[in-house]
Amino acid sequence: MTAIDPVDLTAKLVRCASVTPEEGGALVLLQGLLEEAGFACTRIDRGGVSNLFARWGDKGATKSFGFNGHTDVVPVGDAVAWSVDPFGAEIRDGKLWGRGSTDMKSGVAAFVAAAIDLVRDAPPEGAVIITVTGDEEGDAVDGTTAILDWMEDAGERMDVCLVGEPTCPETMGEMIKIGRRGSLSAWFTITGTQGHAAYPHRANNPIPAMARLVDRLSSRELDQGTEHFDPSTLAVVSIDTGNPASNVIPAQTSGIVNIRFNDSHSGASLSAWLHEELARVAEEFGVETEIKIKISGESFITPPGALSELVARSVEAETGVKPVLSTTGGTSDARFVKSHCPVVEFGLVGQTMHQVDEHVVVDHIEQLKGVYSRILRDYFS
Amino acid sequence: MTAIDPVDLTAKLVRCASVTPEEGGALVLLQGLLEEAGFACTRIDRGGVSNLFARWGDKGATKSFGFNGHTDVVPVGDAVAWSVDPFGAEIRDGKLWGRGSTDMKSGVAAFVAAAIDLVRDAPPEGAVIITVTGDEEGDAVDGTTAILDWMEDAGERMDVCLVGEPTCPETMGEMIKIGRRGSLSAWFTITGTQGHAAYPHRANNPIPAMARLVDRLSSRELDQGTEHFDPSTLAVVSIDTGNPASNVIPAQTSGIVNIRFNDSHSGASLSAWLHEELARVAEEFGVETEIKIKISGESFITPPGALSELVARSVEAETGVKPVLSTTGGTSDARFVKSHCPVVEFGLVGQTMHQVDEHVVVDHIEQLKGVYSRILRDYFS
Repeated sequence: MTAIDPVDLTAKLVRCASVTPEEGGALVLLQGLLEEAGFACTRIDRGGVSNLFARWGDKGATKSFGFNGHTDVVPVGDAVAWSVDPFGAEIRDGKLWGRGSTDMKSGVAAFVAAAIDLVRDAPPEGAVIITVTGDEEGDAVDGTTAILDWMEDAGERMDVCLVGEPTCPETMGEMIKIGRRGSLSAWFTITGTQGHAAYPHRANNPIPAMARLVDRLSSRELDQGTEHFDPSTLAVVSIDTGNPASNVIPAQTSGIVNIRFNDSHSGASLSAWLHEELARVAEEFGVETEIKIKISGESFITPPGALSELVARSVEAETGVKPVLSTTGGTSDARFVKSHCPVVEFGLVGQTMHQVDEHVVVDHIEQLKGVYSRILRDYFS
Repeated sequence: MTAIDPVDLTAKLVRCASVTPEEGGALVLLQGLLEEAGFACTRIDRGGVSNLFARWGDKGATKSFGFNGHTDVVPVGDAVAWSVDPFGAEIRDGKLWGRGSTDMKSGVAAFVAAAIDLVRDAPPEGAVIITVTGDEEGDAVDGTTAILDWMEDAGERMDVCLVGEPTCPETMGEMIKIGRRGSLSAWFTITGTQGHAAYPHRANNPIPAMARLVDRLSSRELDQGTEHFDPSTLAVVSIDTGNPASNVIPAQTSGIVNIRFNDSHSGASLSAWLHEELARVAEEFGVETEIKIKISGESFITPPGALSELVARSVEAETGVKPVLSTTGGTSDARFVKSHCPVVEFGLVGQTMHQVDEHVVVDHIEQLKGVYSRILRDYFS
C-alpha cells in the first residue's frame, strides 16, 4: 500500500462533519485505512457515541505503544463569522482551514500516518495501538473511558500512551504536557432570614456571611506550587442575590467557586476544606449553608522519565525546539488514560482551537507526523 | 352644620379609589366639608399630583396648629387574595376594611373631624391648618413639598404640625414619633478584567474586592445610638454577578447597600465614607469602581419639649396608655415638614398597612379623633 499523506488525511477528516457526538464518517474512514494496513479494528460504541480501537501486532506483545485522540469537534458557532466553509478543508496561505483542523483531526491524521508508515516500512517487535474517540468535546462519559473499559475486559494493553492534543501555546515544539492540574467547581448557597432593611435585627442577612466566606476563600494561598506544578488557584466566579429592592434584606445568596489544583491537594481534601469554611461562617453568622461540588478531574502526572525523554528528544530532533515539560492548561482525555499507563501529550500549536476560522499550518502537520514517526522508531529500536 | 362622624368619613374616603397618584375624589370630598365649616381652601396641584391646603382663622394669627396627612394609597396588590372589596369600606367584626383604611384615610378623617368640631364648638384664638397630599406613597416630589413651597410663597405658616400617620406598633397609644432616621441607598459596581478560571493571573477578578468591601461595610459599627436614636444600621441587600460559567472569571460585579442613619451622621458624611471604602479596595485590588448614591432623607428630630408633651398628655388621657417618644421606622412626610416647623407624628396601629385585607379597628378611629380634639383644645387654651 502507498504512504498516507497526513495533510490529505486531515482534509478528509475535516470534511466529515463530526460535531460531537456525531461520528460523521471520520472513524469509518480511519478504520478503512488502518485495516488496509493490517490493524485489527474494533468499534466500541456506547451511549450513542462511536469510538475506535485498532491494534497492529499481537495482543500479548512484549512492548506496546499507544496513541489517543478524538475526531469529534465543537460546534461551528457563529457560522456567518467564518471566512471559509467550516467543513471545507480549504488550503490557503499555507494553512488548512476548518473546524477540527487544529483540535485535533491533524493530530489524529499525523499519528495514523506515522503508525501505518512504521508497520509497512519497519514492522516493529511489538504492538502499535490507536485509540480514537468521538466523545472528547462532549460529556466524555462514553468516549476514551469506554475504550479503556473495553480494553480491560478484552485484555488489551498499552505500555505507554501519547495523546495527540495541541499542546504548544505559540511555537511548534515548545511544550509537552506530562500532567494536568485537577479542577473542582462548587455551587453554594447561604440562607438567612428575610426582612426590612430598616429593622436588620429582625432579619438575618446572608450577605455578610457570603462576603466573609468569599474573602477567606480568595485570600487563602492554597500552595506555592510543587515540583512539577504551578501553584493551585481558586476563583470565586459569581455571587448572586437577585434582590432589586434596596429596602429588603434578602433570605438567600449564592456563589460559584472554581479551583484548579496541583498534586498537593485532591478533590476530597478541597471538598473537606470548603465544607469546613462554610460551617465556620454558618456558626459565626447563624446562617444555613448548602454546597454542591463537582470534581471534573483530579490532578495527575507522569513524572519526567523514559517516556517524556523519548518524546522530548524526538520533538527537538524534528523541530529544533527543546520542549518544556508542563502541567498547565485545562483537562484532556489524558486524565482517563493515566489510570491505564504512563501518558504524555504532544501536538500542535493550539491557538485557534474552538474559534471561528480555526486553521492549522500545513507544514506543522508534516512536522508532527515526523515527530510521531521518530518516537515510534526510537521506542521500538 | 352637624358634627363629622370620623368612621363614616373614613369609609367615604376608602371608597374613593385614590391609588397614588390618583386624586380619586378624596380631596374634593374633604374640600367640600372643610369649606362648609369655614375653612379657606386651596388646591395645590403640581406635576400631575393633587394636594389640598385649608386654613380656618387668619393668615397672620398669633398661634397656628397644623395637621398633615395623605389620601393616596398604595396599589391593591394581589386583588384575588383580598377577602373584601378593597374599596368597599365594609364594616365587619368591629373593623373597617379596605385599602387606605389604616394608612391613612382614618387619620385624615380623624383630624378633619376634630378640626371641624373645634372651630364649630369652641372657635380658637388662632388658626387651624389642614394639609393633605395625594403624593406620599409615590415619588413624594410634588406632594407635601409642593404644599410647603406654596405656603412659603403665600406667606402661610404653621407654628407646629402633627402628622397623622400610623405610629403605634401594636397597641393604640403606645408610640409618638418625634423624628426619623435618615435613609441612604447606594448602587456600586466593581470592574476588573475577564479571563479563564484556569489562568487567574491573566485576569483580574472583581469578586474578591467586592467580598472585602462588603465584609468591611457589614462589620463597621456605625455608632452606638444617640440620645434620641437607635444605632444606625447598614445592610448590603444584594451582590450580583450573573456569571453562570464556572470556568470564566467575570469582568464586573455589583452591589446594593442601604443605610438607616441617626443624627451622628449625614447623607454627605456617609457618602464620603462609602467613596473612601471603594477607593481603598480599588487601590488594594487594582479594580475600577463606580457608585450611585440616593439619599432618601436625612435624619431629623423635634427634641422632646412642649409639642411632644402636649401630644403625649392627650394620648394618655384618651387611651390610658403612656406613649414612648420614638425615632424608629421608615420615612414619612414629616421629613419635609421638619424644615417648616416643629413636627411630631401620632396615629393608629399600623400593622396591616400596605397589606392584603388592610383594616382598622372602628373604635380606634373614634379614639384617635378624641386625641386630636384634646390636642387642639389644649393647644389653644
